[in-house]
Amino acid sequence: MGAPRKAKRGIPPKSEFNSWYPSIIEIADLVDKRYPIKGMDVWKPYGLRAMSLIDGLTRNQMSMTNHHEHRFPLLVPENLLDKENKLVSRLKAAREAGVDPSELRMDDEDSGFKKEVYWVTHGGENELESPMFLRPTSETPMYTMFSLWIRSHTDLPLKTFQIVNTFRYETKQTRSFIRVREIHFFEAHTVHADEEGATEQISEDASMVQNILSDLCLPSLVSKRPVWDTFPGAWYTMAADVVMPNGRTLQVATYHHYRDQWARSFDLNYEDHNGETQFCHQTTFGMSERLLGSVVGMHGDDQGLIMPPSIAPHQVVLLPIAAHVRDDVITEIETLSDKLSNHGIRTFVDDRDVRPGVKHYDWEIKGAPIRLELGPRDIDAGKCIITERTGKKYETPLSNIEESIINALDSVASELKIRANENFSNHVRPLPEIIKTDDGYEFESPLEDGIVYSFPFCGNDSDAEILEKLSGLTMLGECVEEYSEIRNCVITGTGTTKMQHLARMY
Amino acid sequence: MGAPRKAKRGIPPKSEFNSWYPSIIEIADLVDKRYPIKGMDVWKPYGLRAMSLIDGLTRNQMSMTNHHEHRFPLLVPENLLDKENKLVSRLKAAREAGVDPSELRMDDEDSGFKKEVYWVTHGGENELESPMFLRPTSETPMYTMFSLWIRSHTDLPLKTFQIVNTFRYETKQTRSFIRVREIHFFEAHTVHADEEGATEQISEDASMVQNILSDLCLPSLVSKRPVWDTFPGAWYTMAADVVMPNGRTLQVATYHHYRDQWARSFDLNYEDHNGETQFCHQTTFGMSERLLGSVVGMHGDDQGLIMPPSIAPHQVVLLPIAAHVRDDVITEIETLSDKLSNHGIRTFVDDRDVRPGVKHYDWEIKGAPIRLELGPRDIDAGKCIITERTGKKYETPLSNIEESIINALDSVASELKIRANENFSNHVRPLPEIIKTDDGYEFESPLEDGIVYSFPFCGNDSDAEILEKLSGLTMLGECVEEYSEIRNCVITGTGTTKMQHLARMY
Repeated sequence: MGAPRKAKRGIPPKSEFNSWYPSIIEIADLVDKRYPIKGMDVWKPYGLRAMSLIDGLTRNQMSMTNHHEHRFPLLVPENLLDKENKLVSRLKAAREAGVDPSELRMDDEDSGFKKEVYWVTHGGENELESPMFLRPTSETPMYTMFSLWIRSHTDLPLKTFQIVNTFRYETKQTRSFIRVREIHFFEAHTVHADEEGATEQISEDASMVQNILSDLCLPSLVSKRPVWDTFPGAWYTMAADVVMPNGRTLQVATYHHYRDQWARSFDLNYEDHNGETQFCHQTTFGMSERLLGSVVGMHGDDQGLIMPPSIAPHQVVLLPIAAHVRDDVITEIETLSDKLSNHGIRTFVDDRDVRPGVKHYDWEIKGAPIRLELGPRDIDAGKCIITERTGKKYETPLSNIEESIINALDSVASELKIRANENFSNHVRPLPEIIKTDDGYEFESPLEDGIVYSFPFCGNDSDAEILEKLSGLTMLGECVEEYSEIRNCVITGTGTTKMQHLARMY
Repeated sequence: MGAPRKAKRGIPPKSEFNSWYPSIIEIADLVDKRYPIKGMDVWKPYGLRAMSLIDGLTRNQMSMTNHHEHRFPLLVPENLLDKENKLVSRLKAAREAGVDPSELRMDDEDSGFKKEVYWVTHGGENELESPMFLRPTSETPMYTMFSLWIRSHTDLPLKTFQIVNTFRYETKQTRSFIRVREIHFFEAHTVHADEEGATEQISEDASMVQNILSDLCLPSLVSKRPVWDTFPGAWYTMAADVVMPNGRTLQVATYHHYRDQWARSFDLNYEDHNGETQFCHQTTFGMSERLLGSVVGMHGDDQGLIMPPSIAPHQVVLLPIAAHVRDDVITEIETLSDKLSNHGIRTFVDDRDVRPGVKHYDWEIKGAPIRLELGPRDIDAGKCIITERTGKKYETPLSNIEESIINALDSVASELKIRANENFSNHVRPLPEIIKTDDGYEFESPLEDGIVYSFPFCGNDSDAEILEKLSGLTMLGECVEEYSEIRNCVITGTGTTKMQHLARMY
């Protein structure tokens, strides 16, 4: 994770996002994709450090909200799935009885899950009695244990999380951080005495997601996913999507209210104050390395990455100038680095024996938020030169350097937010008018590629289906943001403040 | 990881170590063993936190020695093993040609490896073209990548490490932390230009192991493993063994000098200063959750765990006394806790509404190094009461509390070292005289259970075999510590300062 060994040229312009993205990941040395299994990348030190810092943001949120970190086994015996299958059957029966449309599971409910996991069938040369799969997510192993841990209302709420590797047998094209087969994954699982407890948890999750995305300088759309895109067994699923620079949306966080649906299958119940047995209510909250993918994709430019200060492995890279001319340059710059470190700032002294231009070029690619130059003349004048990765360059006195650096980091973060908001505004537009024709519907003006369309909507599932077919895009679900005044639903014409989006999702 | 919910009784006396050990792990809530796969425990918050703090010690050592953290995929395609098989064949040929006995691989060299791993054969419903296994350790995946990364002498040394889950299809009885199937594992892999570079790395590894064991208050025996216990493909293997309270030795760290043996199989070469192609030399260094197992086993007592201050999740547990009598008790104790936290001390305020006796009892079980009591009378007198988990109890003024706590933590660590050294002395004894009889050899006095025997030895492999058969114990290998004066080898009678040990290994 030290200085880059050598600069690599040939970054495509960011306007060609689909070739820029994989190329910058390689050039900035975040991961190496050449491992002989597609979708299983090797994390290089710089990428791993950035990801660990994102995990740090998450752990902070977890700690402030009294979640406790656990670690569950990776392998899940197939026979534990009986309980999950029980859940599926129950939901299916409910649907057939027309009980509650929000209780539906996705269409491939019977076999979808098994198709997406890796199966361990042998231990050494022995065939295992019961095959085991690599966790794609940990409901089954966790709830098996929760049912041993929860006896009484005094055991609730139970708020757990883990940060682990999960696996998905991905058949679609893989992309670093965005669609991979070994996933660096965060999952929080909570258990509550009642529906309200779980609902409060969902609000807490919503704030945590916004806190983390704000630290990453990322605006997002938060929606309640349509029923057909709800997580299996969930009452409802909330999701945060980032609008990437190519206009595709990337789902970076989901949180699910399960009510007591999983609890009924896993016999997860407790004795309440009156000594009566009640089923628990549950939530889950998941994020992944996609957070890093969206940081890379959103903030980088033609010159390389731009790391938000909150997760930059090196917030300030110090460049000694003309160190061969005067011995005190290195000493002074080390002192400066220590001073900043003592203020909790992550620093790195690049003392490679190469020209300053090469260093600037390399750290532009790696996206260090701030470069600080110090040479003999600067020392004599009691100043240094600051370059912010987002563009500003200026002199600043050494006397008050901690404050200058903190301001410079804030300046980079603000600029990243402004740019990300601009990207958002450029890519999210109102849906063109829909005209009813004899054959059905058509748009007044054609849709453009790379645009997320917003529109008032209060229709039902088949109205949504009309829109998806007409646009060739996907409904993100009911947005938590609403229109400030009543508008007419694009299909039903009814007045509503509810907003939805059609987008091409990753 | 908060306060224990309720005290559990029934810890067996530590003198009955084999029942005490599993029981204290459960009672102190380090892991839950009830997960439906044996040897795959669920890490509870308190255990995971202690393990993460051990990882922190390791990361510190890695950072000080310029190792960089990576993360390699868990799954390894079977066909990558061709290179490892090539290594095996080469070594076998060398052995048959009588080239160098130190180049031998363990006896089950052809199939041993495959017998010990879990195999992934299916992705969803598809049988995979090439089966993949779950890494037991990462030579194969890492060296596959290293051969892409290393081109020139300027790329060397390459010093990498990762902290990950590894897997072993264990057929022996499993024990928490000691013999498990999903292993919390640390592995460092380095690549050097020549044998000397790798040899220097081995010295660096030796110091790092001693630094970490010292922080954990654990004495150890460091030996060069006998040839038959050398890691496959290694020139030699060094190992640190902790002598557990039942007299069995637990291998907690190994570091291996590979010379260029793996490099030849993986085509790991570089262009030297003269433009000539040279094979690299390599080392590996591994540790695991066994470090936590040895901490638990060595330091605990009849009352529960004793956490060394370096890795105690809560170094100081603050107990408010009679908080219902005066409102300022909680305020004062929170202030005290913040003051200590600001000095980098890990604190926890146990404000549960239970009697102080219950809290003392619970934190004895969990092994918090220091309990601090503060009540209304203490506040008035400007003092508090300190209880060290190793026995001392005393009053101390609040005015200088940071220093008092730092001293108290040092006192606990010193006492743990004294006790661990006593345990070591009690269990490591000179081997009884060996008498040559008509039938072979016999000991002058019978061996005792639970003792590690030390003795002068400079014999060959068959001399070692005689000793192993006669004692029913295992040779740990040539100890790095030597006798200060010349002694006679117990088998050959030749004068030597070299020391070996016979022990029952975990």
